[in-house]
Amino acid sequence: MIRRASARPARFVTFEGIDGSGKSTQARRLAEALRADGAHVVLTREPGGSPGAEEIRTLLLTGDPARWSAETEILLFTAARRDHMEKTIRPALAAGRTVISDRFADSTRVYQGATRGDLRAVVDRLHETMIGQEPDLTFVIDMDPADALSRGLARRSGEDRFEEFGLGFQETLRHGFLALARAHADRCVVIDGGRPEAEVAAEVAAIARGRRVANDG
Amino acid sequence: MIRRASARPARFVTFEGIDGSGKSTQARRLAEALRADGAHVVLTREPGGSPGAEEIRTLLLTGDPARWSAETEILLFTAARRDHMEKTIRPALAAGRTVISDRFADSTRVYQGATRGDLRAVVDRLHETMIGQEPDLTFVIDMDPADALSRGLARRSGEDRFEEFGLGFQETLRHGFLALARAHADRCVVIDGGRPEAEVAAEVAAIARGRRVANDG
Repeated sequence: MIRRASARPARFVTFEGIDGSGKSTQARRLAEALRADGAHVVLTREPGGSPGAEEIRTLLLTGDPARWSAETEILLFTAARRDHMEKTIRPALAAGRTVISDRFADSTRVYQGATRGDLRAVVDRLHETMIGQEPDLTFVIDMDPADALSRGLARRSGEDRFEEFGLGFQETLRHGFLALARAHADRCVVIDGGRPEAEVAAEVAAIARGRRVANDG
Repeated sequence: MIRRASARPARFVTFEGIDGSGKSTQARRLAEALRADGAHVVLTREPGGSPGAEEIRTLLLTGDPARWSAETEILLFTAARRDHMEKTIRPALAAGRTVISDRFADSTRVYQGATRGDLRAVVDRLHETMIGQEPDLTFVIDMDPADALSRGLARRSGEDRFEEFGLGFQETLRHGFLALARAHADRCVVIDGGRPEAEVAAEVAAIARGRRVANDG
């Protein structure tokens, strides 16, 4: 079901999903498609996306991740996001550009929720106090973790946590993203990421352009 | 006026004050005095005080400090404080030790309040959500910024912000610390830091030991 059918294209678009779901590829492909339309697009990512936030990203992704508690990690992610918002996202939106981010606040909600459900309220309170902005449109690229595993391991990045946490954790994350999409149905669209890359890209681009697509009932 | 007159010594003691007020020296001297009494003392500092928090300290104190907004800076200070609490302060208190910290949450309250008064509510909300602990006893080492300036510049550290912000800002900070001491009179004691170091140290040690001192009416 496609929930966005207005003619006005979304301006702040995020991609979410489990590791290996193809969301980074799809974010890049959407940027290319919208640029081909003549749009000025800023393609960014989290954690990071601004010089200061990239410094915090390095802190989060290098060294033993177990050295931070979940609470400290949430504060560092929120600090990086605040910098990303101030230095990259808001100036780009103010200049009339389209912003496409590979991950945003939903990743923190789902990952922390999957690890420590009791922290979801803390994540939400921090978001409300320090960030206070939601995307116009969020693509949740949905995929069976077993499929994502074979794809993800083929082009393993430093962020890939499959080996660390296992399939069970990825299943929990998948259900977390789907639940989040239901709770934020006004801005979230679940995309079947198990299909060929070009097919997924075409659907994503059509939705981002604000057009209805063939399978929309 | 001395507000703590109980026989039970304080367990979590912090030192606050403007740069160059002598609070680091006094923190160290109090640790030595209590150790001489046979107490197990952990002497620590902020930002930092645990390996993870020291990594965040490096992020905060190296590079151009203007690259962070006040909001991002508050989040980074709170992340460092959370780690410091979890890894150093709480374990030490749980093991029956006395913790003496050179700066704690009051520094964030006063510095951010002096820079952007509108952020005080944000600082308090973050403290309540993520830290939630106050010291048993806080020494506010009070000093005329002009006196602190001559002392501070003589042994300048990387944290010294005098040259950056000037005497007017230090005056604002001084009044911020005094106002904070009035607002938290249950745990704060203002100490005249303009006297000889040994005299200040003797008064601080007497108060920390929970004894009344001569000038307490």
